Amino acid sequence: MTATIADWGEHRLLPWLQTFSPAALVGDDGAVLTPEPGRSLVVTTDVLVGGVHFSDATTPPDAVGWRAMAANLSDLAAMGATPWAVTVGLSLPPHTEIAWIEALYGGMQRCLDQYGGAIVGGDLTRSPTPTIGITALGQVDPAQVLRRRGAQGGEAIVVTGYHGNARAGLAILLDELGDLPVAERDFLIAAHQYPQPRLDCLPLLPKVGVAIAAMDSSDGLADAVVQLCRASGVGAQLEVDQIPLYPGLIAAVGEEQALEWALYGGEDFELVLCLPPDVAAEFVAQLGPPGAIVGRITTDLDVVIRRGSQVQPLDQTQGFQHFQS
Amino acid sequence: MTATIADWGEHRLLPWLQTFSPAALVGDDGAVLTPEPGRSLVVTTDVLVGGVHFSDATTPPDAVGWRAMAANLSDLAAMGATPWAVTVGLSLPPHTEIAWIEALYGGMQRCLDQYGGAIVGGDLTRSPTPTIGITALGQVDPAQVLRRRGAQGGEAIVVTGYHGNARAGLAILLDELGDLPVAERDFLIAAHQYPQPRLDCLPLLPKVGVAIAAMDSSDGLADAVVQLCRASGVGAQLEVDQIPLYPGLIAAVGEEQALEWALYGGEDFELVLCLPPDVAAEFVAQLGPPGAIVGRITTDLDVVIRRGSQVQPLDQTQGFQHFQS
Repeated sequence: MTATIADWGEHRLLPWLQTFSPAALVGDDGAVLTPEPGRSLVVTTDVLVGGVHFSDATTPPDAVGWRAMAANLSDLAAMGATPWAVTVGLSLPPHTEIAWIEALYGGMQRCLDQYGGAIVGGDLTRSPTPTIGITALGQVDPAQVLRRRGAQGGEAIVVTGYHGNARAGLAILLDELGDLPVAERDFLIAAHQYPQPRLDCLPLLPKVGVAIAAMDSSDGLADAVVQLCRASGVGAQLEVDQIPLYPGLIAAVGEEQALEWALYGGEDFELVLCLPPDVAAEFVAQLGPPGAIVGRITTDLDVVIRRGSQVQPLDQTQGFQHFQS
Repeated sequence: MTATIADWGEHRLLPWLQTFSPAALVGDDGAVLTPEPGRSLVVTTDVLVGGVHFSDATTPPDAVGWRAMAANLSDLAAMGATPWAVTVGLSLPPHTEIAWIEALYGGMQRCLDQYGGAIVGGDLTRSPTPTIGITALGQVDPAQVLRRRGAQGGEAIVVTGYHGNARAGLAILLDELGDLPVAERDFLIAAHQYPQPRLDCLPLLPKVGVAIAAMDSSDGLADAVVQLCRASGVGAQLEVDQIPLYPGLIAAVGEEQALEWALYGGEDFELVLCLPPDVAAEFVAQLGPPGAIVGRITTDLDVVIRRGSQVQPLDQTQGFQHFQS
């Protein structure tokens, strides 16, 4: 028997692939390079595959371009870095329409126009499978680098916005949801198609004198909290009632479904940060709602979620266990 | 009628895609970024697609990894930059064997061990089509950047080694060539499977006080000379008898076929440089054979190739027109 990717799965494969990289560089949303003392570059790469990460049924090419770019810029934001330069490696079938490519680049360009950075190079190759690989470079003051490690017991866990909306938008596009008011429908679809990397939050971050633990919630809020805890050797308690859920989402699918999507849906591209309680309160006040403190870091290793007197383990991959009502 | 990639072709598509990038950054083997005065970074991206750029029939995974990395490092060499950091965006079918990935990374790693640089990040996604996208970052003194533009009439055209061997190695692997002596056979196959980026040439380059025009011959010697001339607004005359051809290649396929592969075969990953004649002579002397001066830059715009008294236009894409004997 010869082992395959399917046999191993991502959770075994990724740590193994990381053994090919210098240990100091892996385990965050991007790698921090230091061309010289006092200056850091962040590098991050994301690949989107047609039929896996996007399809014409749910995502027009303009949105494919925006999302591909936003995912990379969100990784930069999660490292505290501002966008500087990106390369685009594009593999497309020969029958791809020029108008499709133009719309794709239009979406990428609009995202860069809004958040900074420029396309500085790339490659275009023939492939039966449409594939978009983006590598983004960002700049950051070494003292302001955000990493996954370093969360401390007693810190507050902050999220910068709503969770669950991107997954709900996808459900609408897949015709899995019933009728919604137009405004709510458009808002949720936009959350899926045009996510906003939270680079706007970086200038609001206080200088706390120690490294801030943070990552983005691209793989869901549950995954982000578990990853932060693992990297930092700590635990966490999330408060169900504090997780910011869009009222239009609760109205459409109910609170339990909304909560499941918030925890496990992914692709909301918000930031999840660990901050001393007073600093967190000030940051959230500056941010305004739906930014919120959603729990706290604990010194044991358990990652749990609480509603009232009920507490249950928060698993990063296993589905949401509904609370008894 | 809606235009497609197949309708437009690469020669129309690539310049159009470049309109999405800042004008100063495109048109070379990589983009030159300047984080601050006195320091430059070069960024380059290459994507290899299974079934298009490699196949299990001709290339074991170790060689796929080596070639993918070598192609990027060659782009850095063509810009005068030394390797620093690379990211690897990998898209693979779920049935891919772990041993295949291990060999792929082994090949990439060996190439980096030999030439410098480290894998600092990447992405792994599912895809029906095996695809390897590499982005490489290199460092270069701003005064030592090599670009395609800047070639001057009267300069000598230098190549750093044999041309045609990589295409011959592919022909052997495709069973298109008859029996060869083992040593020649192995040498030609190695030229295809394990090309050597010519980073070793950079320290030998003289400081001429002006920007040196250069690129690599990844798309063939003819393409390199035409691209250098177009970017510089000059012409060139190549001397057939000066193009370094491997004697074992001439013995196997004859001089005409060897010459065609040298000009149009591609993937030899040598450097093609334009240097003042005396500087070129000194550089070639330091380099030793098969490094050679193969022609000169002219002030008109024609790019021609000469054998004895016969002169014919050198086309970048059209096949080789055999000289009359």
